[in-house]
Amino acid sequence: MADMADMGDIASEWRQRAQQEMDQKVKPPGSLGRLESLAVDLAVYLETLEPRLERARILIFAADHGVSRLGVSAYPREVTPQMTRTFASGGAAITVLARTLGLEVEVVDVGVDALLPPLPGVVDAKVRRGSRSFVDEPAMTEDELAAALAAGRDAASRAVGSGVDALGLGEMGIGNTTAAAALLAALTGLPPGDTVGRGTGVDDRGLARKLEVVEMGLARHAAVLADPRRALAAVGGLEIAALAGAAIEAARQRRVVLVDGFISTVAALAAVRLAPEVRPALFFSHRSAEAGHRLALEALAATPILDLGMRLGEGTGSCLAFPLLRAAAAILREMATFSSAGVADQGA
Amino acid sequence: MADMADMGDIASEWRQRAQQEMDQKVKPPGSLGRLESLAVDLAVYLETLEPRLERARILIFAADHGVSRLGVSAYPREVTPQMTRTFASGGAAITVLARTLGLEVEVVDVGVDALLPPLPGVVDAKVRRGSRSFVDEPAMTEDELAAALAAGRDAASRAVGSGVDALGLGEMGIGNTTAAAALLAALTGLPPGDTVGRGTGVDDRGLARKLEVVEMGLARHAAVLADPRRALAAVGGLEIAALAGAAIEAARQRRVVLVDGFISTVAALAAVRLAPEVRPALFFSHRSAEAGHRLALEALAATPILDLGMRLGEGTGSCLAFPLLRAAAAILREMATFSSAGVADQGA
Repeated sequence: MADMADMGDIASEWRQRAQQEMDQKVKPPGSLGRLESLAVDLAVYLETLEPRLERARILIFAADHGVSRLGVSAYPREVTPQMTRTFASGGAAITVLARTLGLEVEVVDVGVDALLPPLPGVVDAKVRRGSRSFVDEPAMTEDELAAALAAGRDAASRAVGSGVDALGLGEMGIGNTTAAAALLAALTGLPPGDTVGRGTGVDDRGLARKLEVVEMGLARHAAVLADPRRALAAVGGLEIAALAGAAIEAARQRRVVLVDGFISTVAALAAVRLAPEVRPALFFSHRSAEAGHRLALEALAATPILDLGMRLGEGTGSCLAFPLLRAAAAILREMATFSSAGVADQGA
Repeated sequence: MADMADMGDIASEWRQRAQQEMDQKVKPPGSLGRLESLAVDLAVYLETLEPRLERARILIFAADHGVSRLGVSAYPREVTPQMTRTFASGGAAITVLARTLGLEVEVVDVGVDALLPPLPGVVDAKVRRGSRSFVDEPAMTEDELAAALAAGRDAASRAVGSGVDALGLGEMGIGNTTAAAALLAALTGLPPGDTVGRGTGVDDRGLARKLEVVEMGLARHAAVLADPRRALAAVGGLEIAALAGAAIEAARQRRVVLVDGFISTVAALAAVRLAPEVRPALFFSHRSAEAGHRLALEALAATPILDLGMRLGEGTGSCLAFPLLRAAAAILREMATFSSAGVADQGA
């Protein structure tokens, strides 16, 4: 692989070429706004003036959390396996959206705390029945972390092997905004009071409890939090690690990664801390209503495409943003130029 | 037709039913944000708990403007017929986006100042080769206005007749942000200094010229501007009138109307002033970067779906927002409920 300085030169060349091409398209310069900058970012990342995104697959990593026994969620722990079944039966938000918009979905059980029967569209890659409670011990051992990262890489590889152009990150796991809030604080040094939010909708008492749990976890594991891999093991979660693994592998195989909301973005941040070359692969689908999401986006210098006040996860934002990213690619690839269309340019 | 009070009662009943249904879907309440409110709005308008938007057609009305000879645009008048040809050959932004996202496009020439040969996908409904210069006389006579409104209604009827669920408004016409700025000022009483913007990208001198032209037009026609129909004839444009006609007919046949940017929104405002029952049909696709668009949206109490810094017109925003509106409908129609999915609800 070329070193980072060479990569920077190559990227800036592609950026210049793509911007030049975009400015010749038959429209006032800049008039397609964000669509133009997305198209240029795609051209730079994919190293082509004809970026093409046809097929996308949402990867939903599902897992339980040790801390979900501590009253940090508005929903009981049983909801994780129940929702995993709902993905399989097609009645969940993400399955409805993906069906409507023509995306594929793969659910990967990396740590659901239940013995699930074989379910259509659900891959069994269970590392453990739920992560450990990070209040008492690291959420994952080093081996468990490695297995969760590998499960994510494997899912990305399956998708790439089947010809997918883009991967959307998604997740399900009662308690996972608590783990993501702890991990975001660990990776950025931000106070947990800023990273903890209401998740699926805890009341004030639940919110106070959640903050307390995150503070206890950060205090217990303070010695290791400067190392992103150890921080991920200490206060992360099995699905969060799998998301990071998927992003790393997708970037290695130069596929576009659509990042969803709060949890996915924190996982993407962990991936970038583990492997900085992942960053250009990441496209940020939406701004979640979850409080800490803004901070996670800032830590990645990321501007999301949509802002619809959503906070469901499951990859719903990734799914909704895909048609827009696909459209951006088509603009650069297919639009006529002023000269090819025989249209008079500005000031001509 | 039921009177407005009855319609209000019916609408509030549907709103209650749709919201109740949405709240039973297997997700934290409100967690799909704007998608939920869009789905409820669709249910109210279409009077069903199973709204369905499969097919959409973008209607692009093209026309020239008398005022475009006065130095109000960054592009020469010839661009209107040239872009009309580019729509037909498939190289324009809107044709690329519609092809990518699976929407249909129909271009209607209601006043292009050129003798165009028959072009694929372009309907000849030319009222006049360009509107008159509103600095000197009304942009349209009463007969010309009636013909332009009818051309819009006819295009909407053709679309509905062919089984389309939603219509997207789009337009092309060098000089039409000048006409739209004048019409917005006329319909709202806002100062033209607030409604006039840079359009396709005029420089400071062009902007000053544009404001001067709008002020002259408003002064000349001051006596008739309180009447929306006469205001539309005085300072509007052939494609703006056609857009209003299309919205009115689509609403009459209870089809969804996706409003695009500045010009389409001003046309939609004119339609609502002519026929207030049009309002529930209107879904606002995006917030344009054109300065006056915010004011036009406010006049309609409208919140757009997307905010991508776009300002191209052609129906590009309508096209990009359609997958999201379609997805919103699918959420209400297809998602499982907590009880149907056997998932534990909050606090259960």
